[in-house]
Amino acid sequence: MNNFNFYSPTFFAFGKDKENEAGQLVKRFGGSKVLLHYGGQSAKKSGLLDRVIASLKESGIAYVELGGVLPNPRSGLVYEGIELCKREEIDFILAVGGGSTIDSAKAIAMGAVYDGDFWDFYEGKATAQTALPVGTVLTIAAAGSEGSPDSVITHENGMLKRGAGTDLIRPKFSILNPALTQTLPAYQTACGATDIIAHVFERYYTNTTEVEVTDRLCEAVVLTMLKEVPRVIENPDNYDARANIMWAGMVAHNNVVGVGRDQDWNSHGIEHELSALYDCAHGAGLAVIMPAWMEYVAEHHDVMRMAQMATRIFGCEMNFANPKATALEGVRAFRRFLVSIGMPINFEQLGAKEEDIPALVDKFGIGDGKTGGYVALDRAAVTEIYQIAAKASL
Amino acid sequence: MNNFNFYSPTFFAFGKDKENEAGQLVKRFGGSKVLLHYGGQSAKKSGLLDRVIASLKESGIAYVELGGVLPNPRSGLVYEGIELCKREEIDFILAVGGGSTIDSAKAIAMGAVYDGDFWDFYEGKATAQTALPVGTVLTIAAAGSEGSPDSVITHENGMLKRGAGTDLIRPKFSILNPALTQTLPAYQTACGATDIIAHVFERYYTNTTEVEVTDRLCEAVVLTMLKEVPRVIENPDNYDARANIMWAGMVAHNNVVGVGRDQDWNSHGIEHELSALYDCAHGAGLAVIMPAWMEYVAEHHDVMRMAQMATRIFGCEMNFANPKATALEGVRAFRRFLVSIGMPINFEQLGAKEEDIPALVDKFGIGDGKTGGYVALDRAAVTEIYQIAAKASL
Repeated sequence: MNNFNFYSPTFFAFGKDKENEAGQLVKRFGGSKVLLHYGGQSAKKSGLLDRVIASLKESGIAYVELGGVLPNPRSGLVYEGIELCKREEIDFILAVGGGSTIDSAKAIAMGAVYDGDFWDFYEGKATAQTALPVGTVLTIAAAGSEGSPDSVITHENGMLKRGAGTDLIRPKFSILNPALTQTLPAYQTACGATDIIAHVFERYYTNTTEVEVTDRLCEAVVLTMLKEVPRVIENPDNYDARANIMWAGMVAHNNVVGVGRDQDWNSHGIEHELSALYDCAHGAGLAVIMPAWMEYVAEHHDVMRMAQMATRIFGCEMNFANPKATALEGVRAFRRFLVSIGMPINFEQLGAKEEDIPALVDKFGIGDGKTGGYVALDRAAVTEIYQIAAKASL
Repeated sequence: MNNFNFYSPTFFAFGKDKENEAGQLVKRFGGSKVLLHYGGQSAKKSGLLDRVIASLKESGIAYVELGGVLPNPRSGLVYEGIELCKREEIDFILAVGGGSTIDSAKAIAMGAVYDGDFWDFYEGKATAQTALPVGTVLTIAAAGSEGSPDSVITHENGMLKRGAGTDLIRPKFSILNPALTQTLPAYQTACGATDIIAHVFERYYTNTTEVEVTDRLCEAVVLTMLKEVPRVIENPDNYDARANIMWAGMVAHNNVVGVGRDQDWNSHGIEHELSALYDCAHGAGLAVIMPAWMEYVAEHHDVMRMAQMATRIFGCEMNFANPKATALEGVRAFRRFLVSIGMPINFEQLGAKEEDIPALVDKFGIGDGKTGGYVALDRAAVTEIYQIAAKASL
């Protein structure tokens, strides 16, 4: 096991009606005037925003609204938020929404107390020294941003997608009410679930040895998803299944299951080019890429870790004479699960085109180099993974 | 799943040599003059205390020493620590040791900024409004106090053992260096491991339904222990096995695996009377009591959760015609594991006496009432559990 630091100081308020505690939580964590940051109309229509506002008022918290966050959140709204915070002397950012809204809020939180361009933090030109406190009311179990120190923003000048991470932007509190996710369409629910599973597998595939505790915790999260996701696809109003998924989504990404081990994250990088080019959902892209990445890895790495996944998570029988067969049976089981919850598993189902592969590989941008990760990938490897993904079937 | 709040704001610095970061961590969390609190001579002899002191000096942190914490920490030293903190204007408590030292530090932290008697917090007469910040350098994986909001102290006036809990005494940071546990004797290691497993089972046995995510996480922790503990018993210097156990011990008790579900804790209560009467190790007492409690429960509750434990954790084959047989096979497997790591499983092995059972039950002190928990226990039930424990064998 590697040395590590782990710090997850977020206060999680979990359960029915917990959004009504937003005001007192803002107060507890030192806020008096809030930027209420959200996405489209759904938070308004559902009445959620009204309930949050009522809670703020009850605690004597002033607020200024800034809606309009898009999926893959953009720099334009971040700049607008930063100006607003400075002008209105905002001292707390409250994000009501999913990962995009929370990531946008985190960017504003750093930019509002910085004299330069917030983009410096995303380009690695500067490190945030301070930030406004952030709180969240989560509306989709997926990205894990409610418990993470990370933020990903797309700059509209060049459409560059970059990430920044610092403990300063770990949310002070996150309100997780599973009932708020009951209105999500099945497809979005399944995309979020796939993202959660992918967050675990990016951690699971490691060359760090002697990591039984995090292996087992990773497996626990995926096993939970295998049981609970089909239940919410069948019945979107299944509060308890939503609740299990929501806590799994936080645990999957606050890193308690990923400490002390090298992590991979190549599937996320390879997927990113798909969602950038086709504007498809990140989770759907992962459903296409991650099993393809596994197939590639089974040919280029010792297969015992993948066989472990197959047996411990997907319940495959270990083939002791041929562990690779077990590993690949695990990949097939993973794909069967993805299909069962309505996810695409190949380019056609995703709306991607095989002839775009050279362009995708170019955009992936490793040139003659290699990625890091469980298996180091060069251009040829990335090309092969896209090709496997293009033609995949059950 | 129940509604819940979860808050674990401790910064964990985990790995080799991490004690050398003690000074900078105290500084980061606002300390300038530390009460250095520890137990006996082992921290001195091993050189650990010297390394911690060197680290404090390097960061310009002043310190005052207070050693002498005993297992089952006492009020006397707490009062002494409180006086010392007030007199020396201490602003941070650094505990170097195991659960007893940390619990004592937590008590001092509350008492040092309170005008009344610190014991008020342990008797439920007052709630702490503030506390000095606490940091820890952990030397045994067991109690989980390094990541918990709890403290248990024994008052020397009447030898009353009482607990207090508040987020104010969650450690600001905890340094977990598995190498520091390599010098522990096998018996102490096994006692600590048993405590960790018991912390999980106290959470696992619940009547709350729809808790798959925490079920799976609980199982993950115990599965880790089943693999790693025998390895350190065989080879105390196995750093990696120690590391897996140490993180498992934190996860077992900071409650990330126990949220959203009712918990039991009757085995801890019943054990407590054994360690109070015979001064045996808490973990050893749990090894005797917890399987006995399970046997009792198998007769007085639906057995499916215990069968789940047996199959998912201990790898028993499910007997679909007779789930109770599977449940009891799980209990036997648990006892076999405990024996394999050198734990006692009955009164004789523990040094307890069957004829003391009436006195033990009296001291348990429920009178004509019942406990709460997975199965509510009355006097007769507690008596029966002690009787099962007295005569247990493999």
